[in-house]
Amino acid sequence: MANEKKMVEQITSMNTDFAQWYTDICKKAELIDYSSVKGCMIIRPYGYAIWENIQHLLDTRFKELGHENVYMPMFIPESLLNKEKDHVEGFAPEVAWVTMGGNEPLTERLCVRPTSETLFCEHYANIIKSYRDLPKLYNQWCSVVRWEKTTRPFLRSREFLWQEGHTMHATEEEAREETVRMLNVYADFHEKDLAIPVIRGAKTPSDKFAGAEDTYAIEAMMHDGKALQAGTSHYFGDGFARAFNITYTAKDNTLAYPFQTSWGCTTRMIGGIIMTHGDDNGLVLPPAVAPIQIVVVPIAMHKSPVVLEKATEIYEQLRAAGYRVKLDDSEQSPGWKFAEYEMKGVPLRIEIGPRDCEAGLCMVAFRHNLEKVSVPLDAIAGKAGELLETVRSEMYKKALQNRESKTYACRTLDEIKSVRAEHGDGFIKAMWCGEEACEDQVKAETGVGSRCIPFQQENLGATCVCCGKPAKSMVLWAVAY
Amino acid sequence: MANEKKMVEQITSMNTDFAQWYTDICKKAELIDYSSVKGCMIIRPYGYAIWENIQHLLDTRFKELGHENVYMPMFIPESLLNKEKDHVEGFAPEVAWVTMGGNEPLTERLCVRPTSETLFCEHYANIIKSYRDLPKLYNQWCSVVRWEKTTRPFLRSREFLWQEGHTMHATEEEAREETVRMLNVYADFHEKDLAIPVIRGAKTPSDKFAGAEDTYAIEAMMHDGKALQAGTSHYFGDGFARAFNITYTAKDNTLAYPFQTSWGCTTRMIGGIIMTHGDDNGLVLPPAVAPIQIVVVPIAMHKSPVVLEKATEIYEQLRAAGYRVKLDDSEQSPGWKFAEYEMKGVPLRIEIGPRDCEAGLCMVAFRHNLEKVSVPLDAIAGKAGELLETVRSEMYKKALQNRESKTYACRTLDEIKSVRAEHGDGFIKAMWCGEEACEDQVKAETGVGSRCIPFQQENLGATCVCCGKPAKSMVLWAVAY
Repeated sequence: MANEKKMVEQITSMNTDFAQWYTDICKKAELIDYSSVKGCMIIRPYGYAIWENIQHLLDTRFKELGHENVYMPMFIPESLLNKEKDHVEGFAPEVAWVTMGGNEPLTERLCVRPTSETLFCEHYANIIKSYRDLPKLYNQWCSVVRWEKTTRPFLRSREFLWQEGHTMHATEEEAREETVRMLNVYADFHEKDLAIPVIRGAKTPSDKFAGAEDTYAIEAMMHDGKALQAGTSHYFGDGFARAFNITYTAKDNTLAYPFQTSWGCTTRMIGGIIMTHGDDNGLVLPPAVAPIQIVVVPIAMHKSPVVLEKATEIYEQLRAAGYRVKLDDSEQSPGWKFAEYEMKGVPLRIEIGPRDCEAGLCMVAFRHNLEKVSVPLDAIAGKAGELLETVRSEMYKKALQNRESKTYACRTLDEIKSVRAEHGDGFIKAMWCGEEACEDQVKAETGVGSRCIPFQQENLGATCVCCGKPAKSMVLWAVAY
Repeated sequence: MANEKKMVEQITSMNTDFAQWYTDICKKAELIDYSSVKGCMIIRPYGYAIWENIQHLLDTRFKELGHENVYMPMFIPESLLNKEKDHVEGFAPEVAWVTMGGNEPLTERLCVRPTSETLFCEHYANIIKSYRDLPKLYNQWCSVVRWEKTTRPFLRSREFLWQEGHTMHATEEEAREETVRMLNVYADFHEKDLAIPVIRGAKTPSDKFAGAEDTYAIEAMMHDGKALQAGTSHYFGDGFARAFNITYTAKDNTLAYPFQTSWGCTTRMIGGIIMTHGDDNGLVLPPAVAPIQIVVVPIAMHKSPVVLEKATEIYEQLRAAGYRVKLDDSEQSPGWKFAEYEMKGVPLRIEIGPRDCEAGLCMVAFRHNLEKVSVPLDAIAGKAGELLETVRSEMYKKALQNRESKTYACRTLDEIKSVRAEHGDGFIKAMWCGEEACEDQVKAETGVGSRCIPFQQENLGATCVCCGKPAKSMVLWAVAY
């Protein structure tokens, strides 16, 4: 068991240093590596396989709703970026600029896309002519670049992978529906597939996407009580359409501007999975995106040839049933293997030893709660789906409990301060008047920023937690990643 | 039929102007669009759907052979690019340089990856320690940038999409096997899935990839007799391993350098599909990658409600059987629809009219030869697979016939000249002494360059077609895209 111990010992405990625990998992579970490209990460096979599963599940949902994938250039000429005033103000300070092509300086510098609204708008101006061309429901999977000063794997890196949906609609109503529909797709994906409970809401005006009329987000609570913005959806009105002169002939033969949305989810979700579900033994993966859903570990293979035979049989049955399953019949000790697959967050481990074979049983170990149950060998393939669903639902409940136990309703700034002094990070619910000055003051005095105005409002009093003037809405406040 | 005529007339005939015909198809079949980003293309939904099908088919083959996907940063610091001398010489003149991050100049400029050998090598140096870590079989799907002066959609653009495999092996033999194995995967994919016959061979030394010991390629003949390099696979020896100090402890406990390969295929394949199979009515797509494999067109729907009923029934049957099928019950005329789906290269069109319904029949129109057959309505779903396989095999045969009819064996430079004067572009087979000077002279005098030294050699005489000295091998010569 020496190896096993060594491996587990290498991880900092999450209670000792959550940030270090996070980085340890990223490295030891072989999700990422660093390179000489500062602020960027290498996504290793195990990390990338999680991303591929995420892509597949989200892409299927997008396509079922009629969205089509496209690919836009990765460069944006400076003059194109400059077309929408708010947008360029938001992004220009954090883009990477290409100024040389081969050995020659470019006549106009190009930024590496930080997001692609401008490119989509230029294209839409070309291809949208009539109401018959609407809606346009496009999406792209690509990498984008934002020149961040402080970076952390998955959470904030200079380059990251994402999808960006960009849609155009004939009416404001339809565009607004799309904005919320896609936020709900993200929420549903997080809750059902990633087992991460999320709060849906609108960003306050100061926190909107550059150029958007409204920005919606889903906010998840990490194990340490901090918030992670896990997906955003924006309603643009016809602002970009006017800036890019996108017009179409409506049914009544008048010329009109279409209404626009965009929405995006990124590799940051992998950071969310780690910090929502992980523990001191390593990663804990939701079954829907786990590269290996079930690992079969034969025990004491040398004692009886039946062990490997049975293990192989179970492996083949599970594979045939469509699960992502691995048989580890390597020379490593069972202890090493247990630690390894715990570190990698494999949801179910099936152990088969000589005595199990005689008794017609196998041991199923659950990663999420480290418990074990005994299951008849001939029932395991049929029961695997149910077991994985149990894992998912218990992971979700555990995450929800964590959130509920760290969510506090506060009516005064002093209450926020004392909650934070006593409990540390968590979600604060408190009323707000709608003024940016109050947002700033809450942040300055208590450390928590406004995360969103939840769709599910509660009435926690009639006055703003900060200025005491009439409150407009309940805001979710937290320290965020 | 006015619309139909108009649409078809908009395409230049391939015999009038092949280059214009090509560009017309790219635009009219809605594969691409241009933007203000010079030399880059927008891949539109129909074009991108072809790419997604290509990705899926190739990725499945890669994974079956044990390859894993990863994601490397899109930037390469100049010092890293400079580590392997031949490599940087080949690529530095054609890369895009990022020199500013936000508003600050970078201390070291970064190139946007033109290919990722250097990044993979840096990572491999980190993670390869022991013979147990070998082989490493990594692949990545991404976009790359090469600052080309003259660009054409799919064939040559400043940014393109591709996959790049990068593998490391304990022995030269194993690495050499991998190099050829992956070339064969490309060849098999082209012949079976894209219905494009290819010639496998080695590049001559002057035409090798920058830094490679050997480069292999598959060469396809386009309809106009020109060659298209459709995929390459490189054997690197341990050159990069030495430059990047990648070492591992071998079984005998000595320190050793691993042997390396890389191999890539790009969106250029879509250009190959267009120029191999297309005709004056537009695109002709191989069933394996066609976004729509079968389109069902109800005729004279207004005459009998049974028409749409039957068409829907057939559509549902085909969909349930797993085909990518579309039912077009829009208001457009049948003539417009026929022209539209011919332009888009849909392999099979099923027409169902009132009289067909009465007779229990439908008409199946083949895109590749524009022929039609009558098929019983209740047999069509069961027969579709066979029909699509017929399409594939006839497309392949037609392409092979084109290649064979335009391939010429030549024994003297004069023969090459007269073949070219008489027949125009095609493949020339001729013997070669192995000297670069002769390659250059053949090119200068006849216009054809060496494409590859085919694996399947023929003996066309004992002397070099150019200098008359003893010949080493038969070379395939052609004008290339």
